[in-house]
Amino acid sequence: MKVNGQHYHTIWVKEDDDSIVQTIDQRVLPHQFEIVDLKTSDDAVHAIKDMMVRGAPLIGVTAAYGMYLAGLGNENLQEAAQKLNASRPTAVNLSWAVNAQLAAVQGLSDRGAVIAKLLENAHRIRMEDIVISKQIGEHGLALIEAMSQYKSNETVNILTHCNAGWLATIDWGTATSPIYHAFDKGISVHVWVDETRPRNQGANLTAFELNQHGVPHTVISDNTGGHLMQHGMVDMAIVGTDRTTIHGDVANKIGTYLKALAAYDNNIPFYVAVPSTTIDWHIKDGLNEIPIEKRSEDEVKYIQGKADNGQLMKVLLTPETSNALNYGFDVTPARLVTGLITERGICNASEEGILQLFPEKR
Amino acid sequence: MKVNGQHYHTIWVKEDDDSIVQTIDQRVLPHQFEIVDLKTSDDAVHAIKDMMVRGAPLIGVTAAYGMYLAGLGNENLQEAAQKLNASRPTAVNLSWAVNAQLAAVQGLSDRGAVIAKLLENAHRIRMEDIVISKQIGEHGLALIEAMSQYKSNETVNILTHCNAGWLATIDWGTATSPIYHAFDKGISVHVWVDETRPRNQGANLTAFELNQHGVPHTVISDNTGGHLMQHGMVDMAIVGTDRTTIHGDVANKIGTYLKALAAYDNNIPFYVAVPSTTIDWHIKDGLNEIPIEKRSEDEVKYIQGKADNGQLMKVLLTPETSNALNYGFDVTPARLVTGLITERGICNASEEGILQLFPEKR
Repeated sequence: MKVNGQHYHTIWVKEDDDSIVQTIDQRVLPHQFEIVDLKTSDDAVHAIKDMMVRGAPLIGVTAAYGMYLAGLGNENLQEAAQKLNASRPTAVNLSWAVNAQLAAVQGLSDRGAVIAKLLENAHRIRMEDIVISKQIGEHGLALIEAMSQYKSNETVNILTHCNAGWLATIDWGTATSPIYHAFDKGISVHVWVDETRPRNQGANLTAFELNQHGVPHTVISDNTGGHLMQHGMVDMAIVGTDRTTIHGDVANKIGTYLKALAAYDNNIPFYVAVPSTTIDWHIKDGLNEIPIEKRSEDEVKYIQGKADNGQLMKVLLTPETSNALNYGFDVTPARLVTGLITERGICNASEEGILQLFPEKR
Repeated sequence: MKVNGQHYHTIWVKEDDDSIVQTIDQRVLPHQFEIVDLKTSDDAVHAIKDMMVRGAPLIGVTAAYGMYLAGLGNENLQEAAQKLNASRPTAVNLSWAVNAQLAAVQGLSDRGAVIAKLLENAHRIRMEDIVISKQIGEHGLALIEAMSQYKSNETVNILTHCNAGWLATIDWGTATSPIYHAFDKGISVHVWVDETRPRNQGANLTAFELNQHGVPHTVISDNTGGHLMQHGMVDMAIVGTDRTTIHGDVANKIGTYLKALAAYDNNIPFYVAVPSTTIDWHIKDGLNEIPIEKRSEDEVKYIQGKADNGQLMKVLLTPETSNALNYGFDVTPARLVTGLITERGICNASEEGILQLFPEKR
C-alpha cells in the first residue's frame, strides 16, 4: 500500500544488495517512517521480539527471511530456527514459516544451493501472503457490498481492533483488506479504529495506514466500541487473528473478546479475517491450549507518543510503585464469531465450516 | 483517606478563611499533589468542567459549595445554578445538589442568612456523602467477606473500572469503600485496576489511592479484564455509577458495559456501588434516556504522563490528521448487574429491588 504516495511492502530484499533484508520500523509509526536493514538471523529475532515488525503474517515472513540470513551467514540453521521460534510465542505463522524453511533445505548439502533455496522459499512465502491477503479482501468485499446495499448505499461503519492491516502482512492486510477493496471500489466506508492499548497498534498503525490510503476513519478508546454498538453506530466488526483453532476459536490482540461479546449482544456481525496460515490444525480448545504471551509491565505503565517539540517520548501513566500486568492476546470463543473470512471463502467458525473450505485437512 | 500519611477529604472549607473552598487538582495525580483554592462559583464551574474534580458525588458537593461561593460573592443564585448545572451533563448529583441549595434558601431574604444557610447546607451534603460512602462500604464488605470465606481466605480479586474511589467522593469512595473496609479488617484483597482510557482515571487516581492506602493492586489495560475473567483471575467486579435508572440500568464510565458483558459471560458477580443520590427516579430506559457526554477528541489523541525529567507532558498518540471520538459514559443494562450496593443495603438491579430499599419513592 502507499506511504506518502509511494508503494511499499512491509519487508523486501534490498534492490542492489541481496545480503540485506529491509523492513519498516513500526515502533516509531505514525510519527516517523524509518527503513531498517536486517543482516543476520539475530537482526530478524530482534525485529520480531522488539515488535519492530509484528502481525502474525509479517512475523512469519520475517522469520523466513531470518532463516535465509542465517544461511547466508553460515549460521547453524537448527539453532537459528530455535531462536526465531522462541522470539514470539502466540503466532503460529512463525513456526510454520521456520519449519517450511528447514524442510525446504533438508537433504541439500551445497551451501550455495541452500542459500538460494532459502531465499527462493522466503520469496514464495512472501508472495503467497500477498495473494492470501488479496483473496481475503475479495471475499470480504462481498460482505461489505451486501451491507452497503442493505443500507441503501449509506456509509458502512466497520469496527476493527489492533492492526490486522497491510503493516501486519506484506500488502493489503487481513481485516483491512476487505475495507481497502471496498474503498477502492467506491463503496462508502468508515472505520472505527480501536486504539488498542497497551501498545496502541490501532492508533499508531491502523490509523496511519488508513490515513495514508485516504480511508475515512475515527480513532476511539478501547472502551468505546460497546457504546457505539448499542447505538447502531457499528454495522460490522472485522478483526484479525494470530492463531485460530480447528473449532474456530480465535486468539487475537487482547480486548478482541470484549468487542465480540458486545457485537453478539447487539446482533452485529463479527467477522475474523483468517489466512489459513494462522489455523492451528492441532488445537481444539482455544481457551486452554493457546499459549498467551505475557509482556513487560512497562508497556502498560508507560506510553510512547510525540511531544510538542516533535520528539518521540515515553511518559509514565501510573504511580511509580504500582504494578501492572500485560497479556498480549485473548481468545474469542467460536460461538461469538459470525464467520471466518479465509483466502478460500467465508465459512462458519466451526470445525465443519473450516473443513468444508480446507477438505485436504480432514 | 490518607495521602503521604496525612488524612484528607477531597473538598473542604479552608481552616482559617471560610471564604475559600479547597480541593485537590486531580488532573495532575498521581504525579503531583496540588491543593487548589475555589473563590467564586466560576471557580467551581471551572473545577468541574475541566475535571479538576470529578466523580458524581464529588461533583455534587463541589456544586453545593459553588452555590455557597455564589452567595458569598453576591452573585445571582439562579444564574450560578444554571452555570453549575451545565458544567457536566451526565451525573445526576450535580443538579440534585444545586436544586437542594436553591430550595434551602427559598424565602430567605437576609443576605447573611442566605450565605449561612448555603454553607450549612453544603456541609450537610458533604457529611451525608461521607456517611453514604461508609454505609456502602459496610454493606459491600459482607460480599467480600463471603467470597473470602468461599475461597478459604485466599485473596479475593476484585476488578474495578475508572475511579469510584474516595477521590470521586469525599471519603471512602463508593466502589472502593467495600474494598477499604475489607482491607482494614485484614481480609486479603487484590484489586485489578482498569486504566480507563481516555482519561486514565484508573491508572491515575484509583492506583494512586490504593497505593497510598497500601492495598495490593495491579493496573491493567482496559482490554485485559475479559481475559482475566475467562481464566478465573477475577472473583467479583465492583464499579461506580454516575446515573442509575429506577430499572437498575447504570450509566458509568465508558467501557463499564464491556466488563459487565464479560462478567456475565463468565458467571462472575458484577456489583455497582450506588449512592441513592445517583438514582434518577424519573428515567426508566437508561440506553435511550440518559444523556451521554461527548468530550474533546484531544483526550483520545493525546495523553498526559510524567516524562523522564519529572515534568508532566502531553504526547500525541495518533496521526496528526486522524479524527477521534470521545464519549464519556456508557450504559450497562440492569440484566448484566448482579446487585446494587446502596447505603441502605444490597438489592437487585430492578425497580422492585430498588423500591424495597427506598419504599418512600413508591
